[in-house]
Amino acid sequence: MVRTVSLGEQILGANDEIALANRTALNRAGVLAINLMASPGAGKTSLILSTVAALRAEYRIAGVDGDLATSIDADRVAAMGVPAVQINTGGACHLDAAMMRCALEQLDLAVLDLLIVENVGNLVCPSGFRLGVHRNVLIASVPEGADKPYKYPVMYLGADAVVLNKVDVLDAFDFDMAYFRHGVEALNPGLAFFPVSCKTGVGMEAWRDWVRQQVTAFRQAEGAGYELR
Amino acid sequence: MVRTVSLGEQILGANDEIALANRTALNRAGVLAINLMASPGAGKTSLILSTVAALRAEYRIAGVDGDLATSIDADRVAAMGVPAVQINTGGACHLDAAMMRCALEQLDLAVLDLLIVENVGNLVCPSGFRLGVHRNVLIASVPEGADKPYKYPVMYLGADAVVLNKVDVLDAFDFDMAYFRHGVEALNPGLAFFPVSCKTGVGMEAWRDWVRQQVTAFRQAEGAGYELR
Repeated sequence: MVRTVSLGEQILGANDEIALANRTALNRAGVLAINLMASPGAGKTSLILSTVAALRAEYRIAGVDGDLATSIDADRVAAMGVPAVQINTGGACHLDAAMMRCALEQLDLAVLDLLIVENVGNLVCPSGFRLGVHRNVLIASVPEGADKPYKYPVMYLGADAVVLNKVDVLDAFDFDMAYFRHGVEALNPGLAFFPVSCKTGVGMEAWRDWVRQQVTAFRQAEGAGYELR
Repeated sequence: MVRTVSLGEQILGANDEIALANRTALNRAGVLAINLMASPGAGKTSLILSTVAALRAEYRIAGVDGDLATSIDADRVAAMGVPAVQINTGGACHLDAAMMRCALEQLDLAVLDLLIVENVGNLVCPSGFRLGVHRNVLIASVPEGADKPYKYPVMYLGADAVVLNKVDVLDAFDFDMAYFRHGVEALNPGLAFFPVSCKTGVGMEAWRDWVRQQVTAFRQAEGAGYELR
């Protein structure tokens, strides 16, 4: 008798178990968790800083920042006076549920409403590892070019919203908005879409309204009914 | 007796064996191979197109393009009338030596001087997998921000040159050139550095001269003495 062991499935299974426990801890504490994913330099930290600045009067917010090295990002979030945890992955190209668990252990979830997670800058690998969050948000940026949904489809399939950052430089780049939108829609029809500039503030109000809607819906559902992200 | 098997080392060992065979095939044919690595959208394909346009009268050039999906990049290179092979990784976040071997089998190395490889857009994973090339070139871009050498150090450690693309938009971004250069120098002192704009052509002559120097040195050494890349 031949027995086949699929190592990939085993590892993902273990990761999902921890992700589920993370989710349970977040739900019990009434904390909505949003995972931001993007290429390096698309504007994950900038979006977090802008969102914290605008919503800190309404919600108790904390940040978790994943990077291969340094605490540059968490330092910037902490400088705003909100709790921030830096996860240094030591070379790993994505966050996983165990890293997320370590970060949650550093936070007092009971005094939080909203947790924003910044994944490692990578448009491929983070999609394969659930963390136990409620929402995945993909940040694209104008200078990267409009073909990214076509070239990196898996990230777009698993997203609950797409933020297109750096629209203030649209004129400086040959960015084909219709082509970009078509690529996103083909993968994930009706996906919430927010063209913004973290630098100028353009479009940020619509994005923040979406975050508010997510918090409201989460509270109404008491964390139930969310796909594991 | 306890026997320890390190799976990571075994896999890398097998990859390196194939990489070495790729290198041997390239050396026998007298083909210099350069591997371009970068974040998504930094300008790998643009640099290839510009380099091919400028050097095709001097060298017989071919391209290998790695992407998760689509043949957008290889189509653009092939449209210039040079041989181009698209590798679709099927979701994998980097090229490896076996994929490179498949690509080499599609090319007539005997009629080539220079092979330019475009890795998957990813600032983490490609650094862990040697392909059998002679030179690694890292492309950064101004919109990504100046902190990338600090956050993604491994890619900078393994590079033989850094191209900083999109300098035509330096004024539109808060890019701290001194901070960027300091980060690169701390990891890889004296690393060849080319600030360029593939769009305007600024700085491209210095980059092309570097490529010419690599071809000349490779021919003089007959492929000997190169670290496996």
